[in-house]
Amino acid sequence: MTNIAEKLAAQQKEISIAEFFEKNKQILGFDSPTKALITAVKEGVDNSLDACEEARILPDIYVEITETTRGEFKIIIEDNGPGIVKRQIANVFGRLLYGSRFHAIRQSRGQQGIGISAVVMYGQLTTGKAAFVISKTAHQEVAHYAKLLINIKRNRPDILEEDFKVWEGKEHGTRFEITVSGRYVAGKQSVLEYLRATAIVNPHVNITFKDPTGGIINLHRVSEDLPKETIEAKPHPEGIELGQFMNMGKASQHRKLTAFLVNEFSRVSPRVAKEICNKAGVPESRSPKRMSLEEGRAIQKAIAQVKIMAPKTDCLTPIGEVLIRKGMRNVLEGLKPGYYSPPVTREPKVYSGHPFQVEVGIVYGGQLPRDQPVEILRFGNRVPLLYQQGSDVITKAIAGVDWRRYGLEQRGGKGIPYGPAIIMVHVASTQIPFTSEAKDAIANMTPIREEIERALRLCARKLKTHLGKKAKRAKTQEKFDIVQILIPEIAEKAASIVGKPVPKLGKTVTSIMNVIWIDDKLEYDKKRHKGEIHIYNYMAVKRKLNVHTILPANSLDKKKINPEPSEIKGDKITWKLKGIPSTEMFTISFELTGLDKNELGDIEIYISDINPTHVIGAEPLPGDWDLDERGQHSLLAFDDANGEEYEDDIEDDDDENGMDYDEATEMIEDEATEVISNEE
Amino acid sequence: MTNIAEKLAAQQKEISIAEFFEKNKQILGFDSPTKALITAVKEGVDNSLDACEEARILPDIYVEITETTRGEFKIIIEDNGPGIVKRQIANVFGRLLYGSRFHAIRQSRGQQGIGISAVVMYGQLTTGKAAFVISKTAHQEVAHYAKLLINIKRNRPDILEEDFKVWEGKEHGTRFEITVSGRYVAGKQSVLEYLRATAIVNPHVNITFKDPTGGIINLHRVSEDLPKETIEAKPHPEGIELGQFMNMGKASQHRKLTAFLVNEFSRVSPRVAKEICNKAGVPESRSPKRMSLEEGRAIQKAIAQVKIMAPKTDCLTPIGEVLIRKGMRNVLEGLKPGYYSPPVTREPKVYSGHPFQVEVGIVYGGQLPRDQPVEILRFGNRVPLLYQQGSDVITKAIAGVDWRRYGLEQRGGKGIPYGPAIIMVHVASTQIPFTSEAKDAIANMTPIREEIERALRLCARKLKTHLGKKAKRAKTQEKFDIVQILIPEIAEKAASIVGKPVPKLGKTVTSIMNVIWIDDKLEYDKKRHKGEIHIYNYMAVKRKLNVHTILPANSLDKKKINPEPSEIKGDKITWKLKGIPSTEMFTISFELTGLDKNELGDIEIYISDINPTHVIGAEPLPGDWDLDERGQHSLLAFDDANGEEYEDDIEDDDDENGMDYDEATEMIEDEATEVISNEE
Repeated sequence: MTNIAEKLAAQQKEISIAEFFEKNKQILGFDSPTKALITAVKEGVDNSLDACEEARILPDIYVEITETTRGEFKIIIEDNGPGIVKRQIANVFGRLLYGSRFHAIRQSRGQQGIGISAVVMYGQLTTGKAAFVISKTAHQEVAHYAKLLINIKRNRPDILEEDFKVWEGKEHGTRFEITVSGRYVAGKQSVLEYLRATAIVNPHVNITFKDPTGGIINLHRVSEDLPKETIEAKPHPEGIELGQFMNMGKASQHRKLTAFLVNEFSRVSPRVAKEICNKAGVPESRSPKRMSLEEGRAIQKAIAQVKIMAPKTDCLTPIGEVLIRKGMRNVLEGLKPGYYSPPVTREPKVYSGHPFQVEVGIVYGGQLPRDQPVEILRFGNRVPLLYQQGSDVITKAIAGVDWRRYGLEQRGGKGIPYGPAIIMVHVASTQIPFTSEAKDAIANMTPIREEIERALRLCARKLKTHLGKKAKRAKTQEKFDIVQILIPEIAEKAASIVGKPVPKLGKTVTSIMNVIWIDDKLEYDKKRHKGEIHIYNYMAVKRKLNVHTILPANSLDKKKINPEPSEIKGDKITWKLKGIPSTEMFTISFELTGLDKNELGDIEIYISDINPTHVIGAEPLPGDWDLDERGQHSLLAFDDANGEEYEDDIEDDDDENGMDYDEATEMIEDEATEVISNEE
Repeated sequence: MTNIAEKLAAQQKEISIAEFFEKNKQILGFDSPTKALITAVKEGVDNSLDACEEARILPDIYVEITETTRGEFKIIIEDNGPGIVKRQIANVFGRLLYGSRFHAIRQSRGQQGIGISAVVMYGQLTTGKAAFVISKTAHQEVAHYAKLLINIKRNRPDILEEDFKVWEGKEHGTRFEITVSGRYVAGKQSVLEYLRATAIVNPHVNITFKDPTGGIINLHRVSEDLPKETIEAKPHPEGIELGQFMNMGKASQHRKLTAFLVNEFSRVSPRVAKEICNKAGVPESRSPKRMSLEEGRAIQKAIAQVKIMAPKTDCLTPIGEVLIRKGMRNVLEGLKPGYYSPPVTREPKVYSGHPFQVEVGIVYGGQLPRDQPVEILRFGNRVPLLYQQGSDVITKAIAGVDWRRYGLEQRGGKGIPYGPAIIMVHVASTQIPFTSEAKDAIANMTPIREEIERALRLCARKLKTHLGKKAKRAKTQEKFDIVQILIPEIAEKAASIVGKPVPKLGKTVTSIMNVIWIDDKLEYDKKRHKGEIHIYNYMAVKRKLNVHTILPANSLDKKKINPEPSEIKGDKITWKLKGIPSTEMFTISFELTGLDKNELGDIEIYISDINPTHVIGAEPLPGDWDLDERGQHSLLAFDDANGEEYEDDIEDDDDENGMDYDEATEMIEDEATEVISNEE
């Protein structure tokens, strides 16, 4: 121990961030050759998309991968983005922790200022080769190029060559070339899968991909609309850390606490600011600079108690219900599922002062494989997440829901469920809390996990209703079949014994069934969806009822709805049926145009103005059908604050409508006896 | 798009590493209040352990947690380490990416230079409070203290206060105090669990823990031996990246390629260096500075083809078999398992130039819960890993083994198996590739995963042998019982019918069983293990055989082995038994001292010099019993290159020894008839 402390002190030194990541390249997503190639492409494409969207340009992206030597791949990524000005090219590509999106409170793909320079670093580490960048802005006459490495010890670009260059036929854009060690694979967790998944949730993007075999894959844009422009936001006061709050106070130009709260945070009105100060017992006139730690803590506590509006949505661009449906259909690759659960897009919430928003979609059944864990599709700010599924908050949320209640198999009610389903979850945020710089997985932050769980339950509840309806119908159908086969047989036999004609049985059947039976049919032909809703009255008396459904208003062919609806309100359609005579059937028909074949799944049918226990094949109208004014699928939004009230409200009530088997059998026997005795 | 490129360029700026981590605190392990508290303690304790071991001091560590305000905890960590010299205190605690262990190729807990300063940053972010550090080295008269924050924009310490200070009764050591937002919990994933698990794999450590209730928990050291001192290594040439290799060449002082290879890499002898140059077709005299990229690539390829010795073990300190056993016992907390599989410590391997070593232990059965996923214990460089199990290479390796072959339940032969087992895996390396700076999980690097899989299979194979032996014995026992109950009954009845005395049945029984039956007994009494091996000859003739077993040589009481072994070689003991007469039993007995009760599990018994199909209760001696010269449990090492050859070599051969039930029953009947007819 002879001066070991001095010896240790001599070894203490600064570690450059580039050095750190060179040694820990797995943290950046370069842990295997396959993943390294995907990560490299992903960082380039994500950058291109961000740049195009910021400049409000519809992105055209070209990706090329060539195997130059065995195990070495040259990657080219070219976009039509705004370009990078000459003086920034080297910094953007040759310096870790350098970027434009880190300090902005706004949804974007790249937020760390690490991704693309990490690719340059990985390239030079594994192949010794420099990156080549050429870029042109609309305001420059010519393009500029640079060939560069990263000086690892200094974390600064080493420019080997740079000059201006004529870039034929290019108005503006950036082209990035790098050679990396890697392995190119097809199938799951591949470059193509990443590009496909990206195209799905970014339908405004055109991607041309030339793979190492020379094959060209075009992923055409299906929408000319850029996602709405995101507006930079101020931090939301909820969940902000005390130290951060104190620092903001110290740096503030405002003289009064209330002005500080109103101007430097989002969603704090003067009234709310006053309320916070009062609750905290801190004078409104306190200078934020001179606020004590104790006062800061009191304000933080008060913020948690005062009702503050949810963050604005204009810093976020969720995928939306239509695209989620489309996206999930694309993933199926021809497999036909039994059911598309209407996607759920939740209202934004806050974690640690950052707004975030959760979206969920589920498809189920049909040709999906049954004896496997469900497939999970994860997205963060419209970027597909292909790795580290096990540590993602999305996976943890899915594993935390008891799926047995919703018809999936799940050992002990925990863990990834088994069954024929695909579950898609998108988290959008101004700051996605990734578990590492590789941006493979979202960290298990409690507010995010709980919000995903709520969205999953809401979506799963639709699935359960669907499955319940199916099971209920199947069961009633069975009863139906028994009644319709047995009664005529018994009646015939009885009639032949007594030598009388067979009696009319309609009334007998209705009195056994005693239900309104609703089913529906949906056909797709010549780019049109043709739908029918059949309402059978198997009750002893004439019945009136209201039938409601939800259909995309824009696609509905108004001329082909029959009968004319009593009311159309956004996507919601209501027919008030005057009265269907006993034993008769009534048909509602409609047509839709302009939708892809699988874009419509189940027709959702609701009923009102009738005792719902008499109806098979439709659900009672939810209480808040009329409350929603957005004219959208309000049913997707009739969640409460936490979505949990639906946990217990759907019990096995198959037998509430009509009788059970024993009763039915008994009744058949009674009726038969009656038929016979009547004829004696 | 009016000069959007310029607008974007103006937003481009450098991000300080502290700023980056402040915003992404989840990456550092501060994603939930519970985890934040554990992470803070862990970083402090890991630092103390590293410092003590480097200074060859037996660590005495004091940890105290107090709840100062609701949700705020003051953490104190004090050690008896070498201390930190005054000029380094502020840097070590107040600067991210600053440390002494990053550049050294040697196994240590902290390697990133991020951990402890991240705790300071998290503390100031969440509570606004400064860290307090006091440290004294053996060479200083007095201690020095500093109260500090981190300047986030500059990533440099802000020293609020510093001075010298008398530290009563302290020769040397460091005390660190910090206040953080957190939540204190008991049970799984708690501070106490982390400390306990740390004590298990670091038996030379004394930890005193004062929890927030004021309760004091002492985890006493159970060993006075520090882990062997690790020697700093040079990089191993295998798996080194091309770019890194070129850089080393450029920086080298050596003039010739061969000298460069021999002197700057580990395990490259002059002969090997020549062979590499020849294979690569690069002149031995090439200056490493002037080596071309193509030559570098050729050398890299040649390195992969030339046989190079595995890395030295002296930069690694595995836990070792005895401590793994001890450790696993402690985890059980009173539950008695049925079987401890002999732990496996593999030879070091290399990934990306970094040596690593894998150790595995399995306990099975007994009172362990049956209907749950197996419990997984993960360690990296003797540090327990409590979070992110799903993304750890250890979990992936476990999920990749088909455990159904080894008696555990596993759906589809993939995923975490179910069953009464605990699987412990330790990865030691000069550079553990963690998935993030939080050091929660080891990245899925193929060489590491494959090596863990091999170790798991080897360990699981022992388990399977044990289970097979158990099942075989149980089945033969059943037959035995039938024979021993039925035959006397039949004989007695027959004798009484014919009025003759009951005949002697020993020969009859032996001719039915026709086996050598071996069982063993192990008792623990007065700190001694007393073992017996019984060999029953149930064959018709006298039989000689050799019996072998493995017992820890150091604990064996040589005076109490009876009969005297024919050979003792390290832990391996052989008795050559001259001949056991038909129907007789022979007993081998031995005693061991100085072992904890559960340190010995099953006695492994092997036989030779006899047809193994005649023996129940022991396995045939493995072919390479004599080959191993280390005098250690060579059976743990008789793996082949990949450990897979054992996959298929154990079939259900229960009935190969002797007859099956039908045969046996038939024979009993025949014998009985014979008995009867003989007496007629």
